[in-house]
Amino acid sequence: MPNWSFEQRIPPGDDRPRSVCTGCGFVDYQNPKIIVGTVVRFGDAVLLCRRAIEPRLGYWTIPAGYMELGETAEQGAKREAAEEACADVQIESLLAVYSIPSASQVQLIFRGTLAEPAFAAGAESLEVELVRWNNIPWQQLAFPSVVWALRHDRSIVEEGAAPPFSAPTSLWGHDLENWPPVG
Amino acid sequence: MPNWSFEQRIPPGDDRPRSVCTGCGFVDYQNPKIIVGTVVRFGDAVLLCRRAIEPRLGYWTIPAGYMELGETAEQGAKREAAEEACADVQIESLLAVYSIPSASQVQLIFRGTLAEPAFAAGAESLEVELVRWNNIPWQQLAFPSVVWALRHDRSIVEEGAAPPFSAPTSLWGHDLENWPPVG
Repeated sequence: MPNWSFEQRIPPGDDRPRSVCTGCGFVDYQNPKIIVGTVVRFGDAVLLCRRAIEPRLGYWTIPAGYMELGETAEQGAKREAAEEACADVQIESLLAVYSIPSASQVQLIFRGTLAEPAFAAGAESLEVELVRWNNIPWQQLAFPSVVWALRHDRSIVEEGAAPPFSAPTSLWGHDLENWPPVG
Repeated sequence: MPNWSFEQRIPPGDDRPRSVCTGCGFVDYQNPKIIVGTVVRFGDAVLLCRRAIEPRLGYWTIPAGYMELGETAEQGAKREAAEEACADVQIESLLAVYSIPSASQVQLIFRGTLAEPAFAAGAESLEVELVRWNNIPWQQLAFPSVVWALRHDRSIVEEGAAPPFSAPTSLWGHDLENWPPVG
């Protein structure tokens, strides 16, 4: 049975407190984790997945998840689309690098396409759909960064904006403390 | 005294083996770590630091290091330049995203400038210098990614190449297994 207990302590030669197990002395270095994901286009629609897991179960997201060891960011983004949407995605280019210190994350979001409209709900999705811009369920999106990614992707098509983008400072009216939006 | 012992085991609900402490049950999730760094320009020279620490002690690098919790990638890059080169760097734009699976790293490298030629060796540097392109000590660079970053930065100026760049597949003649180059 788990019986660890961590305390904050500055290891020798370090300059800031780290989590050190009081039982075994293991230093658990905590650094930001990388989320890899893709805005997947097919024609004028994007691929959205309804989450089958917490957090934000039942809300819509783009295929994305933690980058694993032994893969490139592009390979990780492609793996997540396969796992969550059973989709074989062609990764094209880097859309955005979103630093989100409050979540200890850096999100690397790519643009990608489907060769065929072939997809299905993976184990972590309730359903997967190709959704046109006018039909995006903005109030049912899982995270602010999903809003950012969809809008940034759209800004390339509509305004000729140049990627990669960073996390917007205005948050387009969505701040993380007040997420999810009410109503 | 440290007395931890980890074994590879698939935790409940997971899909791959993780490091689990046999003593206390702690799951040490290992994900790629983020390196943040900057190619810092002043006029036609770039800022290089000679490493005072292992690995590659005595070799030259750009200011770069592990991204910490509670900061954006840009803030981390700026912090590393302050720590290693006592330099107040203006971060400008994203130069490259280098996925290096063999090192379990993703490097986020920025372009930046110095307003004044003010710098000094920080605790992790033996010396810091502004070096012109023709004087870059290619055989004394610490890591392949330092070569990539310097060449990618140069390709913007010389060839109008468009960032961000990825890790080169050709490695410009430098493969990681045979690094450092001989001679």
